[in-house]
Amino acid sequence: MSARRSKGIYLKNYPQGLPAADQFEQRETDLAPIGDGEMLLRTVWMSVDPYMRGRMRPDVQSYIPPFSLEEPLSGGAVSEVVESNIAGYQSGDYVVDFAGGWKDYSVSKGEQTQKVDPNLAPLSAYLGVLGMPGLTAWAGLTQILKPIEGDTLFVSGAAGAVGSLVCQLGKLKGCRVIGSAGSKAKCDWLEQEAGVDVALNYKDYANAAELTKALAEAAPNGVNCYFENVGGMHLEAALNCIAPGGRIALCGMIAVYNNKEPEPGPPNLVNLIGRGVLARGFIVSEYMDKAMEFAMEVAPLLGAGKIKFQESVYEGLDKAPEAFIGLFKGDNFGKAVVRVGSDRA
Amino acid sequence: MSARRSKGIYLKNYPQGLPAADQFEQRETDLAPIGDGEMLLRTVWMSVDPYMRGRMRPDVQSYIPPFSLEEPLSGGAVSEVVESNIAGYQSGDYVVDFAGGWKDYSVSKGEQTQKVDPNLAPLSAYLGVLGMPGLTAWAGLTQILKPIEGDTLFVSGAAGAVGSLVCQLGKLKGCRVIGSAGSKAKCDWLEQEAGVDVALNYKDYANAAELTKALAEAAPNGVNCYFENVGGMHLEAALNCIAPGGRIALCGMIAVYNNKEPEPGPPNLVNLIGRGVLARGFIVSEYMDKAMEFAMEVAPLLGAGKIKFQESVYEGLDKAPEAFIGLFKGDNFGKAVVRVGSDRA
Repeated sequence: MSARRSKGIYLKNYPQGLPAADQFEQRETDLAPIGDGEMLLRTVWMSVDPYMRGRMRPDVQSYIPPFSLEEPLSGGAVSEVVESNIAGYQSGDYVVDFAGGWKDYSVSKGEQTQKVDPNLAPLSAYLGVLGMPGLTAWAGLTQILKPIEGDTLFVSGAAGAVGSLVCQLGKLKGCRVIGSAGSKAKCDWLEQEAGVDVALNYKDYANAAELTKALAEAAPNGVNCYFENVGGMHLEAALNCIAPGGRIALCGMIAVYNNKEPEPGPPNLVNLIGRGVLARGFIVSEYMDKAMEFAMEVAPLLGAGKIKFQESVYEGLDKAPEAFIGLFKGDNFGKAVVRVGSDRA
Repeated sequence: MSARRSKGIYLKNYPQGLPAADQFEQRETDLAPIGDGEMLLRTVWMSVDPYMRGRMRPDVQSYIPPFSLEEPLSGGAVSEVVESNIAGYQSGDYVVDFAGGWKDYSVSKGEQTQKVDPNLAPLSAYLGVLGMPGLTAWAGLTQILKPIEGDTLFVSGAAGAVGSLVCQLGKLKGCRVIGSAGSKAKCDWLEQEAGVDVALNYKDYANAAELTKALAEAAPNGVNCYFENVGGMHLEAALNCIAPGGRIALCGMIAVYNNKEPEPGPPNLVNLIGRGVLARGFIVSEYMDKAMEFAMEVAPLLGAGKIKFQESVYEGLDKAPEAFIGLFKGDNFGKAVVRVGSDRA
């Protein structure tokens, strides 16, 4: 029997600045037969996420190692088990793991793998609102910001996979919610579908001073909680408007990920002192032990239609680079996912 | 009977950049007789502190109102009660309050006033190690940084009133302590008297990259706790060396207080995210309810000689502007205090 072939997306070289499509290429390789304690997975959905840009910097020490140029890229994926030598997993099961992304087949040892039920939610939701972005949103809000009823919550990247859930959970907790996003369509969705009180299209504001003015008008009592996905002028405006005793959850700074030269931070960090502000950076892996608590809070809200989410769906593995690059160009609306294979084999 | 005369230091205009001595002037005014619920205080010692620079910006909203040009400056002071219409206070008592600074006599309503015992410690210590700077140091360390034994603690402004106590309390809690200061004499005192493991003379380092290298060598396992008094390249270096799960107590940014134009923040704030760092700004008034807890921990250590402190003493009210300006030029060693009157009337 001839070896099974597998397609994967490789990085040809490490990008400087915004990655370009021609820095990625698809290669096909033989897939070795699985061994003991392994299973073969067929990818159905794969995720593209901003944090992956950090793994494309070979010289930067981070919380996960850089991508190799010798192996296909990897990341979160929902897959179907094709063949299993691991007890508890059998052909036809669906799983989420972090090895199956950017390729059509993968071999898993069942580490960091979660079984998921295709009947409870659309499979792609396990990469978004019920997956890492969802846990990220929930953890930043409930474990760091801890809003109380009546607080004003500002969310940057509010129409994204993480931000849109932060906004909606904030509303459910009784906050006044202000979200920023990069298009009128996104702002309309935030106000009309997600229930956000004020959506700011940041492209209407030329600099931090202008954004500050708009934010101050939308938050007349100041910003008690800021969920940071963007950095740059968003952080500066938030620090100008932060209320005494304010909290900031630092989740991402997508505005600076592609900078070739480091960009200076905001000039108003001193506001953190005078206003007694807590700022806490975090990555989702810190809160993996809260995944059940998250799922038990968010899944019923989703089932009851109290939380809405958007997806930008890219069809086919070869579209993965475009989906990824789109993250930094504001092309995507909600969670960006790539359909690699059909739901049912 | 003719009215009692009082001397006070006034600000003639609001400084741009580093304040100059000729922006201050001494004026003499009549002191009105005290009314019901008031007492007359004779200032013995007055404090100069970096936060006062913030009160010299009339356009900046802060946690305390800006100084008026129409009244003498004010601040922390140790005073003797001369005459009292307040129950519980009588002539000859000594008190610490925030109205008596920058003048030789003041009228107090007994708000934010604490009685102090001149027999338990030198009176000036109530403005330093046993006063606001002491509580600031203790609160930042115990309420925010919460070091555990074996942690590496980095303290900027380490030879100052706040920093020197942070360093010594950190050593007593089992930390490896690295302090930065601006002269060889200060570094020698830190290593030889205060017990700091490594003192860095920041003037030996031209930029954040050089300071980072020195800090990384002194902290081979990374910085778990950073007590920030300085800002600028100190914050950038600390963020380069911060360990995963690190904590930062943001107490002051003296390096930027006199900037005419806002100075950009460090370009590496994104490290807060990847390393899961907590940064908490604070002002001492937030922790006034812990003043007794602080005093009960620190006073015995002081009495037992386990904590050392330095003072820069300026003789006479007319030296107050020089003492204040010296804060920003690194002229002072330890707590800067001004002797306004004799200890005993």
